[in-house]
Amino acid sequence: MITEIITIGTEIILGDIQNDNARYIAEKLTELGYDIHYISTVGDNRKRMYSLLKTAMNRADIVLVTGGLGPTDDDLTREVISEVTGRKLVFHPDISILLKNYFQHRNIQFTENNLKQAYLPEGAVILENELGTAPAFILETEKCTFIAMPGVPREMREIFDNKVKAYLMKKNTAIIRSRVLNFFSIGESILETKIKDILERQKNPTFALLAGTGEVKIRITAKGTSEEEVSALINEAERKIRERAGEYIYGYSDEGLAAVVGRLLSEKKKTIALAESCTGGLVGHRITAVPGSSDYLAGGIVAYSNQVKIDLLQVKEETLLKHGAVSKETAREMAENVRRIMNTDLGLSVTGIAGPGGGTKEKPVGTVYIALSSNSGTDVHKLSLTGNREWNKWMSSQYALYFVFKHLKN
Amino acid sequence: MITEIITIGTEIILGDIQNDNARYIAEKLTELGYDIHYISTVGDNRKRMYSLLKTAMNRADIVLVTGGLGPTDDDLTREVISEVTGRKLVFHPDISILLKNYFQHRNIQFTENNLKQAYLPEGAVILENELGTAPAFILETEKCTFIAMPGVPREMREIFDNKVKAYLMKKNTAIIRSRVLNFFSIGESILETKIKDILERQKNPTFALLAGTGEVKIRITAKGTSEEEVSALINEAERKIRERAGEYIYGYSDEGLAAVVGRLLSEKKKTIALAESCTGGLVGHRITAVPGSSDYLAGGIVAYSNQVKIDLLQVKEETLLKHGAVSKETAREMAENVRRIMNTDLGLSVTGIAGPGGGTKEKPVGTVYIALSSNSGTDVHKLSLTGNREWNKWMSSQYALYFVFKHLKN
Repeated sequence: MITEIITIGTEIILGDIQNDNARYIAEKLTELGYDIHYISTVGDNRKRMYSLLKTAMNRADIVLVTGGLGPTDDDLTREVISEVTGRKLVFHPDISILLKNYFQHRNIQFTENNLKQAYLPEGAVILENELGTAPAFILETEKCTFIAMPGVPREMREIFDNKVKAYLMKKNTAIIRSRVLNFFSIGESILETKIKDILERQKNPTFALLAGTGEVKIRITAKGTSEEEVSALINEAERKIRERAGEYIYGYSDEGLAAVVGRLLSEKKKTIALAESCTGGLVGHRITAVPGSSDYLAGGIVAYSNQVKIDLLQVKEETLLKHGAVSKETAREMAENVRRIMNTDLGLSVTGIAGPGGGTKEKPVGTVYIALSSNSGTDVHKLSLTGNREWNKWMSSQYALYFVFKHLKN
Repeated sequence: MITEIITIGTEIILGDIQNDNARYIAEKLTELGYDIHYISTVGDNRKRMYSLLKTAMNRADIVLVTGGLGPTDDDLTREVISEVTGRKLVFHPDISILLKNYFQHRNIQFTENNLKQAYLPEGAVILENELGTAPAFILETEKCTFIAMPGVPREMREIFDNKVKAYLMKKNTAIIRSRVLNFFSIGESILETKIKDILERQKNPTFALLAGTGEVKIRITAKGTSEEEVSALINEAERKIRERAGEYIYGYSDEGLAAVVGRLLSEKKKTIALAESCTGGLVGHRITAVPGSSDYLAGGIVAYSNQVKIDLLQVKEETLLKHGAVSKETAREMAENVRRIMNTDLGLSVTGIAGPGGGTKEKPVGTVYIALSSNSGTDVHKLSLTGNREWNKWMSSQYALYFVFKHLKN
């Protein structure tokens, strides 16, 4: 089935905001096995909206539209869908009551304008909006099916995840499911080489190699006549891939390294302390982004200056003089000392040169040492990164989390 | 002049990556005063690329295209632009020499495939790609002008910023320029109310209110016949806005709070130390994202557990028992103590409940205390945030940086 995504909104067309709605919907459609032929953005302009929706209606089976469902004069999605399909707008008293309640409950004044949100094209199936006022809808016509969702990302996602996805899963005559494996510490081309024959031989499932931010993912997509059949195909494909490159797999889908590490620390009832230099607090920020992290993270020391390394992390002055702040010796002391100071099972340190300045011939920008101290000893790793400051900080945090992951797995 | 943006790439249409190229180009076009009517994405599919580019050619004056300029069989932009315009592909020996040198220099093997990058539509003006192999080009035809740029974001941005922008500035018969003012700590509707008459009265410049991530921006766009005339109009508009809401302006355009704070700390030769709890290292990460931050940041303590607050930040046990970790008393001690411990001019602390768990009736999720200690005393601020964990962490870091900004300004 051919789909098309249309994101309506002046703030997108002016480049004021990122169009995450398009990406989110496209990603989910791809996982469900739908083909997407075009993704378009247009402003709150009736003439251009009409042109776009009419073209889409004539070339796609399902057209997913976001935006333009609000109560203002600029919100034209209902009107334009009504116009291109010939389905006149019909008043829904039950929606108008829901709307009035929504506003009363929040002590916001209900105006006449808001009533227009209760007019929907004839035949539309309403999808309730739990997080906002604009009801979404699905309108099936002879030419195509329109799915209209709000433009506010969290409202759109709630409706897509909880209502639209089920509809799309039913509508696709075949059962198509995907699973995404997250890899770290292996480059895209090397991974491709390791599983080349698996990629080439298979027609079902199919595989897509996706480059993330310093990581690689493989999306396995299988098609079948039942959920069991499809799951079995995906499981077998995953098993084969794990045989070749399983050591590099750390998780699935949207679960990043920090969440995976957090889960393992929790399960194993281990605690961790951090000693960060060039990452500046990024590792701590990522770990604390996961709810429940207070169960395993005691805290961290961001030792940006050498004096703080000496005073708070008790790094020996002679170590700094002899080997420098960016060295395996300093990384080792930072990790072992923070572990002792905060009395945790693990101590993790990162010290390096993020750039653009600070590099030398012996230690160019991108030189980073990461150390992990535990009761079985201290491992030190050296990185030679080649990105800009932001990239080097990010990749340092990625590798740091990855080394903790590997340690906990073994 | 009417423009259209077409981003070509299978990884965008499948939702594998964010389409930042579209947003970037749209933002820059808007600042230069160009109207954008449609933004579209299509995969590396010749038929659909042809359909899209042909439609665009017939309805826009300038069509900016990204992607499809690589050396593989999937790279079809040159071929399709040649087809829709009727301008045959012409071999450029000088480009093929540049390409060969590029590969030799990096010890990568040059293959026949790469030669296709030296074929460009007749009449194309070449824009050199300093960061990659694919040359970009501008092709002026009777119907419209095509500007073809690489899909790799940093290559596209370099070419756009250093070559395309100048072309667009010349091509627009009027001089149109924009300036963006960044506001913090004032809501969009309140700001709109304060400058309502300025917004309504003006035809030139025009104003756009943009909502950022927990901040508000105003884009002032002015049109004129000379750079001086346009600058004068923008300066006057900024002056009027500053009269009404100047206390909330912290900077311009893309310069975030961390960069502004860093600049002020540098200028005033002040140093700072951080004591973070709920932000977990985010403030340190943001400050260290700015090159040169080692000039003013000594370091930080991420005191996630109460024990670390006691042991490393020397917060009094009785303070924690009596008032709790999330209190103005604890925030004060954290800021004053880290300042003393790291011997800096300023000490900044953040302690709060990011959520989703941890809230109580007296201290619900979103309760955050921020303290700033200096030689003139300690100021403590209380926030009542209402977002999710990620939002509450972000906004806490925003307010923390903002309070440092205000302190340094006065």
